Amino acid sequence: MKTSHIHIITPIITRGIRSEEDTKPYLRPDLKVTYSLLDIGPATIESELDEALAVPDTIAKAIAAEQAGCDAIIIDCMGDPGLNACREAVTIPVIGPCQTALHIGSMLGGKFSFITVLDRLRPMISHLVSSYGLTANYASFAAVNVPVLDIESAMEELTQGLISESIKAVEIDHAGAIILGCTGFLGCAEAITAGLQAKGINVPVIDPIPLAIHIADAMIKTGLSHSKTTYPLPGKKKRLGFDIPGFSQR
Amino acid sequence: MKTSHIHIITPIITRGIRSEEDTKPYLRPDLKVTYSLLDIGPATIESELDEALAVPDTIAKAIAAEQAGCDAIIIDCMGDPGLNACREAVTIPVIGPCQTALHIGSMLGGKFSFITVLDRLRPMISHLVSSYGLTANYASFAAVNVPVLDIESAMEELTQGLISESIKAVEIDHAGAIILGCTGFLGCAEAITAGLQAKGINVPVIDPIPLAIHIADAMIKTGLSHSKTTYPLPGKKKRLGFDIPGFSQR
Amino acid sequence: MKTSHIHIITPIITRGIRSEEDTKPYLRPDLKVTYSLLDIGPATIESELDEALAVPDTIAKAIAAEQAGCDAIIIDCMGDPGLNACREAVTIPVIGPCQTALHIGSMLGGKFSFITVLDRLRPMISHLVSSYGLTANYASFAAVNVPVLDIESAMEELTQGLISESIKAVEIDHAGAIILGCTGFLGCAEAITAGLQAKGINVPVIDPIPLAIHIADAMIKTGLSHSKTTYPLPGKKKRLGFDIPGFSQR
Amino acid sequence: MKTSHIHIITPIITRGIRSEEDTKPYLRPDLKVTYSLLDIGPATIESELDEALAVPDTIAKAIAAEQAGCDAIIIDCMGDPGLNACREAVTIPVIGPCQTALHIGSMLGGKFSFITVLDRLRPMISHLVSSYGLTANYASFAAVNVPVLDIESAMEELTQGLISESIKAVEIDHAGAIILGCTGFLGCAEAITAGLQAKGINVPVIDPIPLAIHIADAMIKTGLSHSKTTYPLPGKKKRLGFDIPGFSQR
Amino acid sequence: MKTSHIHIITPIITRGIRSEEDTKPYLRPDLKVTYSLLDIGPATIESELDEALAVPDTIAKAIAAEQAGCDAIIIDCMGDPGLNACREAVTIPVIGPCQTALHIGSMLGGKFSFITVLDRLRPMISHLVSSYGLTANYASFAAVNVPVLDIESAMEELTQGLISESIKAVEIDHAGAIILGCTGFLGCAEAITAGLQAKGINVPVIDPIPLAIHIADAMIKTGLSHSKTTYPLPGKKKRLGFDIPGFSQR
Amino acid sequence: MKTSHIHIITPIITRGIRSEEDTKPYLRPDLKVTYSLLDIGPATIESELDEALAVPDTIAKAIAAEQAGCDAIIIDCMGDPGLNACREAVTIPVIGPCQTALHIGSMLGGKFSFITVLDRLRPMISHLVSSYGLTANYASFAAVNVPVLDIESAMEELTQGLISESIKAVEIDHAGAIILGCTGFLGCAEAITAGLQAKGINVPVIDPIPLAIHIADAMIKTGLSHSKTTYPLPGKKKRLGFDIPGFSQR
Repeated sequence: MKTSHIHIITPIITRGIRSEEDTKPYLRPDLKVTYSLLDIGPATIESELDEALAVPDTIAKAIAAEQAGCDAIIIDCMGDPGLNACREAVTIPVIGPCQTALHIGSMLGGKFSFITVLDRLRPMISHLVSSYGLTANYASFAAVNVPVLDIESAMEELTQGLISESIKAVEIDHAGAIILGCTGFLGCAEAITAGLQAKGINVPVIDPIPLAIHIADAMIKTGLSHSKTTYPLPGKKKRLGFDIPGFSQR
Repeated sequence: MKTSHIHIITPIITRGIRSEEDTKPYLRPDLKVTYSLLDIGPATIESELDEALAVPDTIAKAIAAEQAGCDAIIIDCMGDPGLNACREAVTIPVIGPCQTALHIGSMLGGKFSFITVLDRLRPMISHLVSSYGLTANYASFAAVNVPVLDIESAMEELTQGLISESIKAVEIDHAGAIILGCTGFLGCAEAITAGLQAKGINVPVIDPIPLAIHIADAMIKTGLSHSKTTYPLPGKKKRLGFDIPGFSQR
Repeated sequence: MKTSHIHIITPIITRGIRSEEDTKPYLRPDLKVTYSLLDIGPATIESELDEALAVPDTIAKAIAAEQAGCDAIIIDCMGDPGLNACREAVTIPVIGPCQTALHIGSMLGGKFSFITVLDRLRPMISHLVSSYGLTANYASFAAVNVPVLDIESAMEELTQGLISESIKAVEIDHAGAIILGCTGFLGCAEAITAGLQAKGINVPVIDPIPLAIHIADAMIKTGLSHSKTTYPLPGKKKRLGFDIPGFSQR
Repeated sequence: MKTSHIHIITPIITRGIRSEEDTKPYLRPDLKVTYSLLDIGPATIESELDEALAVPDTIAKAIAAEQAGCDAIIIDCMGDPGLNACREAVTIPVIGPCQTALHIGSMLGGKFSFITVLDRLRPMISHLVSSYGLTANYASFAAVNVPVLDIESAMEELTQGLISESIKAVEIDHAGAIILGCTGFLGCAEAITAGLQAKGINVPVIDPIPLAIHIADAMIKTGLSHSKTTYPLPGKKKRLGFDIPGFSQR
Repeated sequence: MKTSHIHIITPIITRGIRSEEDTKPYLRPDLKVTYSLLDIGPATIESELDEALAVPDTIAKAIAAEQAGCDAIIIDCMGDPGLNACREAVTIPVIGPCQTALHIGSMLGGKFSFITVLDRLRPMISHLVSSYGLTANYASFAAVNVPVLDIESAMEELTQGLISESIKAVEIDHAGAIILGCTGFLGCAEAITAGLQAKGINVPVIDPIPLAIHIADAMIKTGLSHSKTTYPLPGKKKRLGFDIPGFSQR
Repeated sequence: MKTSHIHIITPIITRGIRSEEDTKPYLRPDLKVTYSLLDIGPATIESELDEALAVPDTIAKAIAAEQAGCDAIIIDCMGDPGLNACREAVTIPVIGPCQTALHIGSMLGGKFSFITVLDRLRPMISHLVSSYGLTANYASFAAVNVPVLDIESAMEELTQGLISESIKAVEIDHAGAIILGCTGFLGCAEAITAGLQAKGINVPVIDPIPLAIHIADAMIKTGLSHSKTTYPLPGKKKRLGFDIPGFSQR
């Protein structure tokens, strides 16, 4: 059985907030996962402006990953920054953890709630949901209002916040699935599930990165990738100031 | 690594149209797939009436699969017959290949077309698409008008029909993904993809059963299942004429 | 004037919860109503599983009613179990009280709320509403959380619950019509209307069975029935374990 | 059995295009139908401007009908002119034949096509469909392009046009019901149904006035009317130039 | 630079509630604004009935304005009474302040809330929003429950009510723009903006008449008007009781 | 009267395709328009990848324009690149010509068609339309398939293509407004309008840049800007490789 090589691009410049340990518990022998961070871009993604600055180097990293022989790419951010542009640039599957989680959450629970770091992301997520065609399944949005770089230090308090927002999402907004709305919440799902079960609530809590890894592998194993009719290769042209290997022209 | 045991229920009584060979090319060493057919139900599913008669024994087979220790269940029909009722009855993931293909097709191509055996299924598929919340992504429906039991003998002609309908779906209806709308089309995807590529069209062609197997495995590996809040256990009560182990009362 | 003969199928096996007295107050001299219960099926319908088990014999009863010369059929359950399959099997109008009440409620009040027995029916009703194309008119769902078989004994308390949920539906969710979401609530509408009027609220409270009877009659009198293009006759084929007169083949 | 007295307001000033004979074939002994035309208003309704001029006297006629003891009112035009304003002014049911036909067409055929006199009505009908919350069920619009006052003289040619548009609506737009989009088409439904059946197409063809009469009667018999919360009584105030009995103030 | 001549029709008969002073602060040297009131119609518009009675003379006034050489027309009421009929009758741009405010509110804030005089207008506004195709952007509706003729005397209390409803609209319903839902609120926007800012909320508060004036001017300056394919000229015919210059026939 | 200073950012690096002459015919004495091009970014925008590379410097130019005292900003591309990010970064109105044209087209014609350079932009435009909440008004998309840099040399042929696509949009897709889908089409509207009128079609043809200028001015004159609750200021943080004045931290 051929090994699936999945490359995860964490689209920020901050070293040390994603390590190889993070995804180890979710792997199989025939799954190999590698990682990259950005060289140019924002420290964290907490606005549309941050997201815009993350995309150019994310594209470059995606092209590099394909050239290095990877089988699929995951963009490690729940805003799916650069998803469409990367899909134009490469032919191997590019997986957006937000898109993936919203679709799988719809499948498992009918309606989903999205619980994330900051209230200000509400309009951004609302646009993603509508551009993915999933508005009919969107139960609600909630935020625990913790900046991304404080996630690790505030983990306990954060988990309590996620549990209480998840309970409200199910009881008030009738969500049938909880989407953890920041890939930095990696590893929290178990505690939230337990917190919900203590209230007699049994809904899937989706940790987007482990899910994205296995969905990426499912694409590889079934030979599926995104449509090149929907995401056609960009033409060659001058693109000053960016090094986009293969697509730039002098 | 624990083996994932997936059980496929083909919800008809006709022996011999699904064999273990069918899904072998899509497996991995850590994936075990078993099969069952119905004891009571229709010869094929080509109407809502057929579907209704298939559901009671599909439920019984799903309960039996869970009791036998399976890790996930796939209902092998693109009408997803009994999907919700089976999800009520068991806690292991129950995968509908239609629901799965529609969501993954949306992810990979934005809009999908559904190409199936018979024109008369159009309203049924339209209801499924709307109840899955995916109407915004539904590009079109087409049928090759071949009865299910003639699929095998008419394979060549059928494939040509599927290719020509797929081309129209992309060029006229702007589909970015083709959903093979009958699980009896298993194995046709490669030829259709080739037929599309010969026209310069590069969109994913989704063969629902191989996809459903790997999505089922993704659920098992990430510990996710359907919401028991959305699909709660049915109470015990008298249910005359059906043997639904664990839920019947005298 | 020809008498309209309407046949009501109560799709459960429990004797004695529907009697000829129930609908008498709603009749006219030229309206004849007959009744049947199921021989195989569930004691009550309180889940998708129950509904699935009710459908096969509902289909058989519908075919029998048409063969006996009835002019229209009503399926006496707010889940409209087997509505589409029965419409395939017969050409006389088959009326789903849920579908009918949702459409008439939309006509009379713009937006409707659906108030029923159990919270767990929420996703099922949501699917019905969307497959009937009425999501835009769906104000809210509420439940009084009384099991079907307790309705009769808990009538007073139940009526209070229905009144208070109806008030909330109008004041908070801006419903312009109340749909009584269980055909077992037959006869409660007057008390709920009075309870609402005591609060200065004047919205139609739809008791689905009397309405379905008169809508069925309207179909008969105008010569209308469901589309046989949308619900085409099923072909003959083997359907093991079910006695579906006219459609089975050895 | 109490007789139902239904009053039909034909909201134009042209004498002689609606007679008591028209609806006789659709009546029952316990149904009494009376008629009025406008004293001020347009000769026919073929634009939003015509419709606007028809509404004030339609309101006056509706109030008069309620004061005269009628049990229900039908506004005899497929633009439903003044439907909401009349519902504010009276408490007996006011039936819009367009709203009624769209809802019953949705019930019987899933998706409906609207076939009317003039192409220019397309935006008006599209607004009605969306304000009734039925956009999801709207298959298509077509027109035979015959002015209203020429309907009678052009009947044969018109019927052929309606048949050929109906066939296209079913075969191309996948309509499951045909809505005759002008109340002046009264009596054509049978010929169109026959024309469709000659092509093997079996869908309901809705003649709006006979349907509206029986739906109005169904409302009377079940004691239902429109919501007075949705359509509250207008206050008394100066309304110069119009004689709106009961609502005007000096 | 040619002066833009905009004519404002206040579609009521009450003298003195709109003066030339009202819009002066919003003008430019090259903008000329003239005004008219109705000769026949209601004292105020607070129901669909009032609106219906306002339309005939609004149409007459619009035709007169075009004949007098005006460049654009504004209908000074948030129900946009007669908007479509006036657009049929004239070719110069006819601006509905409600339609304009809903679109610009969508542009500036994504989702808007509509805050108006009376709760009873909720269904009317909901129909307008859906017929303008903006349901996806409609955050909520609220009313301060002050009759139109009391606005001026209750200004202070009214402003407090508008501020507190606006705060709820942003904080609870997630509106990104506030639409002042009555043109009689002219001039309140500044105070409401200040009230919101005092709470740290910074969303646009749209005063519909000043906006409509400048949007009308933008149409004039760019040579744009409404589509005469969507709003074709009405034919000439008898229209008893109304003086619609140019469209009536004896 | 204060002059309105509007700054147009053409988000590409190609010199010479936008000059001050272009917008002169659309100005007024109290309107001052200035221009900038990008220093880093693509030669043209013809893909999501191009768009992504245009955004970072567009943001920088928007911040610079606000600091230079401009009153409003227009992003001169029909993909509205960086619209949301720029709105986060500044408080003066940022106008997207696509968003503006879609809303004004909806106002004037009910449904609009979008006619642009390249077929491959269809999914991108579809996402914009849905994220602006205007899917209900979207009649169709068409492309003349001319690369952006060939527009000038192919002007005659291009205009013919735009006319023939516009005719199809109105006659087949029932558009009531034509949106010129590339700001490079500036100045074509008159010829297309004439071409349509020669066919008896009278719908507005929207040239997005002149419209955007006057809508920007309308915002300035009425004191409106985008919501800072919807588009909040980004926090300061490290953003390597980009010079975003005021928002970067070392």
